Order: sequence, then structure tokens, then C-alpha cells
Amino acid sequence: MKNLNIGLIGYGFMGRAHSNGYRRVNNFFDLEYQPVLKAACGRSKEQAEAFAKQWGYESVETDWRKLIERDDIDAIDICTPNNTHAEMAIAAAEAGKIVLCEKPLALNAEQGAKMVEIIEKTGKPNGVWYNYRRVPAVTLAKQLIDDGKLGKIFHYRANFLQDWTISEDLPQGGAALWRLDAAAAGSGVTGDLLAHCIDTAIWLNGGISSVTAMTETFIKERKHNLTGKVEKVGIDDACAFLCRFDNGSLGLFESTRYARGHKALYTFEINGEHASIKWDLHDLHRLEYFDHRDESRVRGWRSIHVTDGDMPYMGNWWVPGLQIGYEHSFVHQVADFLTALAKGERFRPDFRDAQETQLICDAVLKSGANGSWENVAKP
Amino acid sequence: MKNLNIGLIGYGFMGRAHSNGYRRVNNFFDLEYQPVLKAACGRSKEQAEAFAKQWGYESVETDWRKLIERDDIDAIDICTPNNTHAEMAIAAAEAGKIVLCEKPLALNAEQGAKMVEIIEKTGKPNGVWYNYRRVPAVTLAKQLIDDGKLGKIFHYRANFLQDWTISEDLPQGGAALWRLDAAAAGSGVTGDLLAHCIDTAIWLNGGISSVTAMTETFIKERKHNLTGKVEKVGIDDACAFLCRFDNGSLGLFESTRYARGHKALYTFEINGEHASIKWDLHDLHRLEYFDHRDESRVRGWRSIHVTDGDMPYMGNWWVPGLQIGYEHSFVHQVADFLTALAKGERFRPDFRDAQETQLICDAVLKSGANGSWENVAKP
Amino acid sequence: MKNLNIGLIGYGFMGRAHSNGYRRVNNFFDLEYQPVLKAACGRSKEQAEAFAKQWGYESVETDWRKLIERDDIDAIDICTPNNTHAEMAIAAAEAGKIVLCEKPLALNAEQGAKMVEIIEKTGKPNGVWYNYRRVPAVTLAKQLIDDGKLGKIFHYRANFLQDWTISEDLPQGGAALWRLDAAAAGSGVTGDLLAHCIDTAIWLNGGISSVTAMTETFIKERKHNLTGKVEKVGIDDACAFLCRFDNGSLGLFESTRYARGHKALYTFEINGEHASIKWDLHDLHRLEYFDHRDESRVRGWRSIHVTDGDMPYMGNWWVPGLQIGYEHSFVHQVADFLTALAKGERFRPDFRDAQETQLICDAVLKSGANGSWENVAKP
Amino acid sequence: MKNLNIGLIGYGFMGRAHSNGYRRVNNFFDLEYQPVLKAACGRSKEQAEAFAKQWGYESVETDWRKLIERDDIDAIDICTPNNTHAEMAIAAAEAGKIVLCEKPLALNAEQGAKMVEIIEKTGKPNGVWYNYRRVPAVTLAKQLIDDGKLGKIFHYRANFLQDWTISEDLPQGGAALWRLDAAAAGSGVTGDLLAHCIDTAIWLNGGISSVTAMTETFIKERKHNLTGKVEKVGIDDACAFLCRFDNGSLGLFESTRYARGHKALYTFEINGEHASIKWDLHDLHRLEYFDHRDESRVRGWRSIHVTDGDMPYMGNWWVPGLQIGYEHSFVHQVADFLTALAKGERFRPDFRDAQETQLICDAVLKSGANGSWENVAKP
Repeated sequence: MKNLNIGLIGYGFMGRAHSNGYRRVNNFFDLEYQPVLKAACGRSKEQAEAFAKQWGYESVETDWRKLIERDDIDAIDICTPNNTHAEMAIAAAEAGKIVLCEKPLALNAEQGAKMVEIIEKTGKPNGVWYNYRRVPAVTLAKQLIDDGKLGKIFHYRANFLQDWTISEDLPQGGAALWRLDAAAAGSGVTGDLLAHCIDTAIWLNGGISSVTAMTETFIKERKHNLTGKVEKVGIDDACAFLCRFDNGSLGLFESTRYARGHKALYTFEINGEHASIKWDLHDLHRLEYFDHRDESRVRGWRSIHVTDGDMPYMGNWWVPGLQIGYEHSFVHQVADFLTALAKGERFRPDFRDAQETQLICDAVLKSGANGSWENVAKP
Repeated sequence: MKNLNIGLIGYGFMGRAHSNGYRRVNNFFDLEYQPVLKAACGRSKEQAEAFAKQWGYESVETDWRKLIERDDIDAIDICTPNNTHAEMAIAAAEAGKIVLCEKPLALNAEQGAKMVEIIEKTGKPNGVWYNYRRVPAVTLAKQLIDDGKLGKIFHYRANFLQDWTISEDLPQGGAALWRLDAAAAGSGVTGDLLAHCIDTAIWLNGGISSVTAMTETFIKERKHNLTGKVEKVGIDDACAFLCRFDNGSLGLFESTRYARGHKALYTFEINGEHASIKWDLHDLHRLEYFDHRDESRVRGWRSIHVTDGDMPYMGNWWVPGLQIGYEHSFVHQVADFLTALAKGERFRPDFRDAQETQLICDAVLKSGANGSWENVAKP
Repeated sequence: MKNLNIGLIGYGFMGRAHSNGYRRVNNFFDLEYQPVLKAACGRSKEQAEAFAKQWGYESVETDWRKLIERDDIDAIDICTPNNTHAEMAIAAAEAGKIVLCEKPLALNAEQGAKMVEIIEKTGKPNGVWYNYRRVPAVTLAKQLIDDGKLGKIFHYRANFLQDWTISEDLPQGGAALWRLDAAAAGSGVTGDLLAHCIDTAIWLNGGISSVTAMTETFIKERKHNLTGKVEKVGIDDACAFLCRFDNGSLGLFESTRYARGHKALYTFEINGEHASIKWDLHDLHRLEYFDHRDESRVRGWRSIHVTDGDMPYMGNWWVPGLQIGYEHSFVHQVADFLTALAKGERFRPDFRDAQETQLICDAVLKSGANGSWENVAKP
Repeated sequence: MKNLNIGLIGYGFMGRAHSNGYRRVNNFFDLEYQPVLKAACGRSKEQAEAFAKQWGYESVETDWRKLIERDDIDAIDICTPNNTHAEMAIAAAEAGKIVLCEKPLALNAEQGAKMVEIIEKTGKPNGVWYNYRRVPAVTLAKQLIDDGKLGKIFHYRANFLQDWTISEDLPQGGAALWRLDAAAAGSGVTGDLLAHCIDTAIWLNGGISSVTAMTETFIKERKHNLTGKVEKVGIDDACAFLCRFDNGSLGLFESTRYARGHKALYTFEINGEHASIKWDLHDLHRLEYFDHRDESRVRGWRSIHVTDGDMPYMGNWWVPGLQIGYEHSFVHQVADFLTALAKGERFRPDFRDAQETQLICDAVLKSGANGSWENVAKP
């Protein structure tokens, strides 16, 4: 078994999710590599140490540049707010590290382009944590589409609906609330939530050629945790866009944090000539499938409980009927990354893939601002 | 078009449901016969007249014996409480009428046996309003079973759950509450609700050979509307039974009026060697179907929206996607009865079929009282 | 009981649905008026007579202008293709008739404006058959919104998805297929399906101020039934649009006839500050409701089975738990129209209301053609 | 942090599930104790070593008696077939170990009684892996009941439906198939599946006083993997029973491995005077709740997505909307066991609790054999 020494930056929600992925992968997957939790890095020494203890990291750093300089680190995993990704990823790449970057890749496509350029120059393996590709039901959707079950695609629609920022009293900025702060997040729901929808969409249905969008900030001012003052809110609270895919199908995307009753309702539906597919993060272990070729009197949406051993990834877990959860998508990403590493193959989605999402997000935000259809540039 | 002159006794819930069946059938079904609403009969002249006006009956009677004597009546439809069925049906049969009797057939199997004997002696067409056989999704279930889609049957389970008698303040007896009065109803949920479940079950899965039951009366005393006094409650509030079918499958039935959250939740599920079926009265236009022969990765319960033109009865209604409701089962029963009449064929379920349900109910109530397994007699 | 003499033009799907509404309303609703089926009108004498016989119309006409001239007709009900509405409605109005027009009001807003102008000049009662307002669950949604249960509205989204025109072999034009012929229908899914979504939306959530749309015709040419030649398809097979409501909320609408697995899936969802609502035509007897003010550990989407007697319209039907279906919305529309007539009140939606939908449809189609945001004119 | 040194016997499905519980608990829960994976024990040295390597056990044993003798082991965890539990648990108890035993406790109540007697004599902490008590939705159900939300309970019903043994070609005995071998398993679905239903039921609804059961073995003979011969099948393929709880409510339980379409469908529903609850293992992260005290027009079953931080255990995992899975119930059991250990409190369910389930299973099997109602003895 070969070691892959991990240095992880950021000890928030994603720091935990990635760490759990590293710690569990070898219990469930037979791999050539095992991740070694070498160092956790964060600005607060106390918090970094607590995190390292909780997760079994061997050491801590409080300066990410030091972490990158360390010879005993093979891969840098970036779990910090969006406005730090470019600088860290570029520095890590230049230091010859493997780089695993939390999504979205960057604040915008301009940063993203530079990141792609530099990491590709080094030829180092790299990846971006668009983890939903590796929910078994979503991977199954990909297989069904690639096998031609759906035929020509007519429609793709996706939602990512939340309801956690409806209160006017919620401040912006700092710690858990950096997602409300445009300086740290770059955008609101577009980069945070739609980026997930877009990554899945281009994986399942190919590139997007043009978009028209509508964005809204329902609450215009919020107290800022860093300045202590009431400040203008710079992010988009909601964003919806129409689009055309390269394959001629029509797309409809919507995201908001103002949809009462939905905590993290990421859904997609794809309508093809022969069959359709639906998925929903709130019941992530199910895939809905309709096949028009079924005998007509027993034709209906099939609710597939994705837990059997012949479903993607599921042979590595428990027995039929016993569901897995959200965190497993990260374990799968680690497993697939280590497998690609062992085989010397390209891991997907990598920086280049994530840059495609970045370019679409940029077009969406531009259209949201000016009201026109925007063509999407290709990475 | 030939006329079938109807004389209907009882102007309650069932009186309305049957009348609606008669009035609508020729708008939607092409038939040789048309029902003519000749006379409505009830003890209160005022109420009978109001009912006749609402539904377009040509005349009223307040004495059901007079109705039966009338020469211009072809068929007597009995919609009165259970304790009147035997007397009325026997008198109507002896007067040479077609008899359509609301379910359950009688207070008990002893009465039922006499009713069957006499109506069969006359050779007159007869029927019992176990209307759920003619909900399109249920009829579809029957077709799928008869076509062998399920293979050998292992399990049959059915529920009929309600919650309308939980309050201790609800009185028993009289008008709408005769169902709580043992003298009028014969039994509680067994005759009222389980009889429906049993009729469907023997139609779909064949005869029942033995049963063991548990019955309960949660509220022991209620004010009686007829006497004005608090009296012992004689009906079963809840009844559950296990059984063995003639085909070797196992059955599980339960009914109660104490299941909070369920208004009229009649459900059944059948598990066969190859496939399974589920249905639910609260969404009566859907049938759930699982077929193990489907390709494993797209195998799942199919939710069939029973509205297409090739589904049972549905070609007579609207267009795909547009659901029908509860009352349509009565329209279908009228249509099928008139068709059988025109063809000179036996209509099902008739008195003999309903007597089979009666015998099972008797065995269930006996077992509920004595705690033993009881064999079921055949009609 | 006063009579309202009906003359109905068109004996297709809608002719049946309206006739059923007229025939059933007095069985279930106590009203001052009763509709009398005076005459059915259609170009084919044979078909008109068959229809009249099936539904009990007293007479037939084959020329709608003659029908309008008849003194014994109080109300003209227009159930013919869209391209005939304006001419018929204007003539009927000018003849002093009550006019009931199937939706959409007209081929476009220009026609609609004239219809509104003329009917309002006569002061005659008028109505348009946007029947979904009167599905009990939808009416309940309206009551909950009007009672302030949702608070400030943030989002409105609606779909109307079908799958019946995917085959390239399906011809256009004539009889049942006039909906595919731009000359007869005016537009495709926009006027046929989105018009329903828009009518409900403006009723529930108020006016729409601006839209941006995407339209598509997937199959560019189809054989035409009237000419016998392969001709260009002029209708929109799919249409999606983003919009802003007058109240500041964001809207998302989509319709298509290319969504495999959906027969007539009209859904809407409304997200408010305090609560959200969802509805779905495939299970039209249910309303989904989420209330954030519920105690947090028992907070969830409530599936309301809209069958209790205190739900809109349901006290007139059966008992709790027993669902009604699609056709009942037409019975309710007749009941409400007759009630408004008796009280001398304005019936909604009338021509003016329907013209608001027409103006939105026009803006949507214009935006679909030119790619810009379009402001919506008010009627 | 104090260590708890674990010696685990058995490397099958449960060996993995428990090991995962030990390895993950300290990443997510702040506890005084941490489990140390000291030794894994199994008859095959090769397999034991592979298992130990996969899960990080420090050593292996091939003789469980040796494991029990080791001074460096604090707790023995028994994950072997049912027929070994009694002997191992008694030996471990007598050696002064903490004992954690996989369910069911024993082959029968006679064995169970001895196990309880001996472990209680030692005063050592002990537990049985009825893990479903610690699915957050199930724990929430317990809290709601204990808080009186349901009021007086009328009905309890539970199912555990599977479909994996329908094929006649499936052999019995040995390795993964010991569950079909009466010598190893004691019974079929009763001890394997109904035991889970019963444990949850007595926890949520109190003791069971009497039962009447029906059992069936659909496939009478199967090839035996250990003897190589076709042998009589001694287990129950299906078992259903009716019962009365000590609190007066009625129970209905059913389990089978012949229900096509159900992989591991454990469901329960509880109907109380004021409210009802439903749960389903196939969507284990949801709890359905109906409260009759809700305003009538917005009353309906609430689908609670049990992922918020104020739900049982969920504050230790991710963020609202992100579901956990089956395996987490074992992590929770470890966390609660370690907490009880630190506090010196009794852990539930322990041997005594599990013996109550054993006594009910014995009564069920006895009734299944003789057809009578059986009273249930108390532990």
C-alpha cells in the first residue's frame, strides 16, 4: 500500500467532509493508495489543533504557505472560502503538489483560467470536489444516459432550493457566514449552489452554449460580522436561468435560499425521447426512472432504491435496502481519485472541468446583470 | 334503448352514490339499457321528496312494501341500513324484481344464505355494491393477476383505516350514526370496512380457508340517539385477522376507526413470485407495480397513473393524465350491470359472491370472540 | 328554479366536459338556476346529433350563427378551436347573449382586446373556462394565501409537462390535432398549457410585469391533415420563461409536450416568508403545505388530502377520504357562474381576466422570438 | 481520553458494521472514551487477518476462548451466528468482560435467561445491538411519544419485508446463508427480522401481553451447504402475529422474505388519540407525523426530513438537508454506550431488555406451531 500524504487547509464543514472521506476510504475500498492525514492547516492554532485531534492529523500549520513548502506533503486539499482558492492552488501547483480544490474552482473564470494553465503546466493530478457526481444514484443516471436508455435529450431541469437566509437578522461575513459576503464568496447561490447543478448537468448532458438569467437580492443590507456595520449585500439570493445545451436540448436552472420548506433540495430531471430520469438530494438514495418502452398498462415512474450490490459503489457498502448518505459521495471521490492516481489516468472533474462550470456561472451572472442572452465561452 | 326502471330505497350517502351512477352512465358508456329513476323511497315523505327532486326521481314512496308492489319498477336498489337488507331483498325477489343490494349483503351469513336461496330460485339478475372492484386501478390489478404477471402468490395484506369515531362524545344510533349501533349494523368495522377488503381479496386471490382474529371496542359505552340513554357499544371498533387462502398464500387484514390521520385508507398489497402490486384508496387513480424481471439496475416500484385510454374503463372518460374519483366506481358498476343484463350474463359480485364475504366475516367475528382459528364455510 | 338555456358550440373534449358540468351541477349544489341543454351546435349534423343524444341536448344546429340568433338561448358556450373564439364571442355578445368561452380567450391579445371591449359594452355576464382555479386544492391554496399564511412571496414556479407529441409520425391539423396547427391554435404549449399556469398564477400571486422566454419547435415539419402535405410546424413545442411579478416575487414557468413520463403534469409551487405550497394535477386532490412556524422537530411538508367537508366545494360531494377528479372543476365553475348570475356579481375569470393572460402570452412569445426581456401590458 | 479495548468475534456483515461504529465515533462525538480495536477473532486465520488489516485491528485470534482470556481486552463484541451467542457471552461475562452481543440475544428464551442471570451477577455493562432504536427518526418518534404528543395509543403495526429467498435454488447453511439454517439461526424471520420490530415496539409502546401467530415455510427443502444434501428447511420463511400490548393497544406484526419488491422494508406505524407516526427503513431519514390538533384545512401527514441540528444525533453530523444512512445507527449505539459507561449508567437495550424480545419471539413461535393465543412471560 502506497501512502498519499495529505495537507488540508480549512477546518470547516468541508474540512470535516473531506477528512471523513480520507479516513474511511480504505475500510471500504481496496486500493493501492492510502491517504495519510499529515497536516491540518488553519489560521487559529487552537482550532486547528482541536480539528487535528478530532480527525487524527499528525501535525498542524497556521500558515498555509508553510504547509505548501513541506516536503512530506504530497497533496494539498483546499477547503477554505472561495476567494482564497486561486492563490493557494497556484502556489501549491507551483510547489509541485497534487491539488484538490473545493468547489467552485475560483471567484470567477479569469482566476480559473490561470489555475488551469498553471496546474496543467505542472502535469500534476488535480481535482475539484463536485461530490454529487459520485452519489450512486447520480452515477447510475450517468450510466443509463451513456448506455443510450434515454435517447435524444429534449429537456434538462435542475433546482437547488434552500431556506436558511430568509431572516433579515442574519448577518453576513466571517466564519460560517462567509457565503453571504460577496468579497469571500464571489457570488451567492450561483457559485455556491448552481455550480453544483451545472457541474452535474455538463457531465450528464454535455456543454451549455448560451444562457439568459434573472438574479435577485431580496434582502439588500445586512450587518457585516467583520466590520460590525450594516452593509450592502453583494451576493445573489436567488438566480434562475434558461439555457441551450450543445446537443439541442433546453435547460432550466434555479437556485435560491428563500424557498421555505427546502433545506438542500438539489433536484434534476432529464427528459429523453425514450425515457426520463429524476433525482433529489433529499432522498439521494433513490433514482426515479420512466421508460416509455414498457408495456403501456404497467408503465409508470419507477422508484429505484439504489442500494443493491450491482449499483455504482454500492457493492462496497452494506446489503440491499440499506441506504448510505451524503458523506459517502466524498469517500467515493477519494476512492476514484486514488484509483486514477494508481493508474496514471485523468481524474474528473479536474480543474479544466471545473473551469467549464466557472465560465457558465460567469455568463449567468453577466446575463443576470444585463438581461441579455449570453454565449458561453469554452475552457 | 331499453329502459330499466329503478326503485331506490334509502336517501343517504349510498342513495346519492347509486343515483349518480344511474344518471351518468349513459353519458359515458354506450349501452343497450338506460336506467330510469322511477321512484325513490324513504320513511320521511319530506326527505324523500327533496331527494327525488335533487336527483330527478319521478315519484316517491314512504313504504318500501308499496314500492315493491309497483308494476312499473324493474329493479329494487336497497340503500338502507344492514338490518333491513334481508327482509327487503327477499320481498323484492319474491315480487319478481331484479335486486341490487348495498353491501354487506346481510347482518350475518344465516340471513345471507336465505337471500341467496330465494333470489336464485327466481333466477332474477342481482348484484351487491362492492364498488371497489370497479376502480380502474383495482380492475387493472385483477387483469395483471389473471394474466399471470405475479406468478404464485405468497402474501396478501389489506387495511381499511379510519379515524372518525375516536371522540367519546360521538353518540351511536339513528340517521348517519347507525353504523355504531350493533342492532342496525350487525357489526362494526368488520361488516362495514373489512367486508370491502374481503370482497376484493377473494376476487383477486381466491377463497379464504381459515382465520384467526382479534377484535376490540375501545369505547365501551356511548349515548344512544334512539333511546337517549348511555348504552353499551356492541360493535367492533377495530378488527384484525390472519388467514390462509385456498391457494396457499397468507393473508393479513386490519380495520379500525381509531387510526389518526386516515380518513378512508383502504390499501392492499399482493406479493407474488415475480411481481407485486399495491393500491390505496386515498390515491385511487394510481397502481404501484414492481416486476422482478426488470433489468436489475432500473428495477423499482412503478407508479402507474391509471388514466390512459387503454386502462380499464378509462377510454370512456377524459384524456391521459386526468384522474377520475370515487363516485366513478358506481357508474362502472351500473355500466357493467346493464351490459350483463343485455347479454343475459351473470353479474359479479352477486348475492352468492357477497355471501362468501359474509361467511368469512362470520368466521372472523367468531374467532375474535373465542380466540381460535376458525375454518371458513363455503357458500 | 330559474332556467339558463345553454347553446353549446363544439362537441369535442371540452364540449363533453362542459356538458357534464351542466348536467351534474344541480344534483350536488343548491342553486337558484338550472342549466337547460337547449342546443348543441357543430358542423357535422351526424356528429352533432349523436352528441346531443348522448348528453340530452334538446336540439342541434350546424351553423353557429343560427344558434346565436335563437331567442330561446340565454348563453352561448364556445368549445371550438382557438381561431374561432373571437368571431363567435363577438357575434354572441352583439346578439345580447351571455358568453362562456373556452380558454385561451383568443389567438392573441389584439383579438382579446376587441372581445373584452364588446362584451363589456353589452354588460352581459361572461366567463372563460380556466377550470383549474376550481380544483378544491387550488381554491384552498388561494384561501391560504389570501389569509396571509404564506406572508411575503419570494418565488412562484409552475410546469405543465406532457409527452404526447414526441413521435415524428404524428400529423398536425384537423379534428383532435388542431392543437399542433398554428393556424387553428395560435401557438403551441404557450396558449394551450402555459395559459392555464398563468391564469392560476395571476389569481394566486397577482400580475406579471416582465418576462424573458425561450421557445423551441423540436420537430420542424409534420404532415398536415387538412392539406395532406408535409408542412412546416408553426407552433412552439416547448416554452419556458422567467418573470417578475408585480409583488416583487420571481417566477419560473415551463411547458412542453416532450417530457417523457408526464401526461398532464401541471404543477405549481409558491414559496413565502412563512410557508410554502405545492400542487400537482396528477394528484389533484392533494395540497402540499409547509409551515415554518411549526415546532421545529415536527416540521415538514404536510400532504393535505383535500376531501373533508370544510374544504372548498367538498361539502357538496362525498365523505372524507373519497376523492373527486378532473371533471369536477367544471361542475364547480358552472355552480359559481350560476351563483354569480343569481347575485348579479361579476364572475371570475371573465374576459377581462383572460385578456391579462393573453397579454402575458403575447409577451412570452415575443420574447421567445427576439430574446429580450419584454414588459407586459395591462388589460 | 480513556481507552476501551475491543475484542470482536466474527468478521461478517455485522463485524464490519460494528467496526465502522468504533472507528468513526470519536470523529463525530465528544466522549470520555475511545474504542481501541485490539483484536479481531474468527476461525479462519487468513480471513481474520484480512479483516483486521481492513479495519485496523491490532491483532487477530482464531480461538474465541483465547480472546476472552486476554487481559488487554475490556469488551467482547459478539458478531457470530445466533447459536454461538449464549456460550460466548456467558464465557466472556464469567471472565469479567463487558459484553456487547449482536441480536437476537440467543436461540431462545431459555438461553437468554441464563445469559441475563450471569451478566447481571458480574454487574458488568452490557448491550445488545438492536441498532434501529438509534436511527434519528426512530429516536425522535420515541421523544414525541414520551412527550405525550400521541396521547393514548390505539394501534401499533410493524412490517419487516424482504424478498431475497424466493428462489428455490438458494441453498441453506454456512457462511452468508446460516440465516436459512435452523440449527444456526434458531428461527427464520422471527428471530432475524421480527426481533427488530419487537425491540422497537416495546421501547416505544411498552410490553406485549399476549400473541397469536401464523408461520409458514414456503420452500420446504433446500440443499444444505454443510452436508451437501437436500434437507428439510427448519426456519419460518414468513411469520405474522396479532398481539395485545400492556397499555391496551393492539399490535400487528408481519415479516417475510417472500415480498417481491422489498429489500429490507422495516416499517412501523403508531396511531394515538391525538397524533400518529410512521417510519420506513427504506427512507430512514424521514419521519411521517400527523397531528389531529392542526387547523383542519391544513391538516395532513407531515414528512419530516430528520436532518436538522436539533434532531436526535444530527447536530453531530452535517447540515440540514443532508441525510445520513444505515451505518450511523451503529455509530450512535457506540456513542451512547460509551457515554453510559462514563456516567456509570445502565445502557439500553441490554441483555435484560433483549430477553424481553426473546420471550415474545418464543411465544410467537409457540403460537405459530399450535394456533392458540399465548401469554408472554416477563423477563
